[in-house]
Amino acid sequence: MSISSAKIIGSGLIGTSIGLALAQKGVQVLMSDASESAASLAQSLVYPQKDFDSDHAFDVVVIAVPPSAFREVIILEKDINPTSTFVDILSIKTKPQLEVETFKGLSERFVGSHPMAGREVSGAKSARGDLFMGRSWIICPSDQASSASEKVARELVELCGGVVVTMSAEEHDQAMALVSHAPQVLASLMAGALMEAKPQWLNLVGQGFRDMTRIADSDSELWQEILSENAVNIVDVLSLTRKKLEKTERDLSNPLAAKEFIEAGNEGRSLIPGKHGGAARRYIYLHIVIDDKAGQLAAIFNDCAKAQVNIEDVSIEHTPGQNTGLVTLSVLEAHKAEQLEKYLITAGWKVHSTSK
Amino acid sequence: MSISSAKIIGSGLIGTSIGLALAQKGVQVLMSDASESAASLAQSLVYPQKDFDSDHAFDVVVIAVPPSAFREVIILEKDINPTSTFVDILSIKTKPQLEVETFKGLSERFVGSHPMAGREVSGAKSARGDLFMGRSWIICPSDQASSASEKVARELVELCGGVVVTMSAEEHDQAMALVSHAPQVLASLMAGALMEAKPQWLNLVGQGFRDMTRIADSDSELWQEILSENAVNIVDVLSLTRKKLEKTERDLSNPLAAKEFIEAGNEGRSLIPGKHGGAARRYIYLHIVIDDKAGQLAAIFNDCAKAQVNIEDVSIEHTPGQNTGLVTLSVLEAHKAEQLEKYLITAGWKVHSTSK
Repeated sequence: MSISSAKIIGSGLIGTSIGLALAQKGVQVLMSDASESAASLAQSLVYPQKDFDSDHAFDVVVIAVPPSAFREVIILEKDINPTSTFVDILSIKTKPQLEVETFKGLSERFVGSHPMAGREVSGAKSARGDLFMGRSWIICPSDQASSASEKVARELVELCGGVVVTMSAEEHDQAMALVSHAPQVLASLMAGALMEAKPQWLNLVGQGFRDMTRIADSDSELWQEILSENAVNIVDVLSLTRKKLEKTERDLSNPLAAKEFIEAGNEGRSLIPGKHGGAARRYIYLHIVIDDKAGQLAAIFNDCAKAQVNIEDVSIEHTPGQNTGLVTLSVLEAHKAEQLEKYLITAGWKVHSTSK
Repeated sequence: MSISSAKIIGSGLIGTSIGLALAQKGVQVLMSDASESAASLAQSLVYPQKDFDSDHAFDVVVIAVPPSAFREVIILEKDINPTSTFVDILSIKTKPQLEVETFKGLSERFVGSHPMAGREVSGAKSARGDLFMGRSWIICPSDQASSASEKVARELVELCGGVVVTMSAEEHDQAMALVSHAPQVLASLMAGALMEAKPQWLNLVGQGFRDMTRIADSDSELWQEILSENAVNIVDVLSLTRKKLEKTERDLSNPLAAKEFIEAGNEGRSLIPGKHGGAARRYIYLHIVIDDKAGQLAAIFNDCAKAQVNIEDVSIEHTPGQNTGLVTLSVLEAHKAEQLEKYLITAGWKVHSTSK
């Protein structure tokens, strides 16, 4: 094993979770942060038995700070840790790589990376060692990175339980622009458009709009850095989207064009890999009307367990103005869904199934 | 009560659910459909005791057919039912109203309507009488509609358990363009863009993209009619969106502009009314790592019930390449969330909470 000691700079959710995962595998971990109290909290969570000091020769230094702090940190740490491999975890990859290239000799021992985990949670206290378990974790070794550094980066991901995906920093930033950053912009645009709605229209907002704009709740501090620093790639996607939008505006009154347009969306959706990394799957949905009170979900899931049917997904739809809810269970196999539907109906639930 | 008998034309999900709701309130219901077998199935579900014939003087005739069949149906039915009030349930409202105005005297006894219910399900067998319970149901009485007709339309909604929202057909179509139809177009556009992604990028698609494009799974037959027939209003929203997109493309590399942009989305989201029709609420989220096997959800919800804490919402996040899942429970009150977290940890679950 190449990694027996690690210094984690940045004791937020990601940094501390990496620390936890490494410590669980027997790696000596030093947690660090601009805030001494944050570092100390993280250290006590991750590796309370710390018995080495901060000028230890770490095998790997993980930079888990916000994009804006990256350069400052690397300037400080590269000299303190002259033999360590550096791995960062920023959501953008081209810019940190370019910054590293401005320091002589550093590119050889630097590998950019981006774990696909951690949304909606923050801080050391939310960290957990299994955060990266089974998740894709992109590494972007540059042409200048040594094979030893790349090996360390891979091992870091594997120790954390992540699944290594390798691509160039440029490709990473293009891919994220398409699957994450441009969608964020569109979701924020649609959500922002509600400010032009008449108040009575707001009551007509349904589940579709809610789902579509959920990511518009994102943190503006973090996203201003991601959007502005990957602006070139995002603008490429947005401008293509805008051109398609222009065409759609022209064609929309033509039913055939409208149909083809929706079908293209259907087809795109079908490309998204399903659960467990396999191909997308079609579920059977069971819709159940419940009273909105404690214990109802437990009662349903008890009956599901008794029926010995595995629920792949669940959603609850709220009924404005009334204390009832609609629970939708997703089941993978048709015969299992049928078995469950019968069982639940016998148990007194109002169930009906769909397979859309 | 003004409604003691009703003819429902169109025995799909919506028509049959209306039939079920009315019959449960003692209304005599005749189900009808272009397909005789569909009508007969619906009739036996809704009102098996049918003891009146099809030239009965119905108090209300409900038109629950696809938009493309509307005109044909109205031509046929207006003469057979010369005293009945007509109510339709199409997702667009200006066009049917204009069509009605081409028939002398019909406008007085016609009221357009649109129940906010029924997505993702279809067919008489999926119908249920409580489909509209507590849901907004828009009625659009024109200037020419008689007050007696409007009264019948209101009573229809109330018998079905819906909440009447009144607006003009024009306003309905504008509102739907903003909160439903334009978002559908954008979701389909983003989903369709995946066809340009490299295969390895598809594994990087996260929950945000999935949620955002869920409605891109929509049925192309239905949506081609909605999009093409409400094209004027949808294009208004899209063209405004496109102009904002153009501005965003120019400004995105400026961190301050990017921040303001995300904040505008945050603000728009905060306008969406929360559960039970009240103002949007902030939840505490508990994240729990589970094994992906039958019974795990039941076990969690059992413990929630034992802890006497009401779960407002639940989501399951899938872990590609691995048989574990992350369950997120939403709880309304901080002290309840804390109570639940402690209880679940004691019960052996891996829990951590966030309040974003």
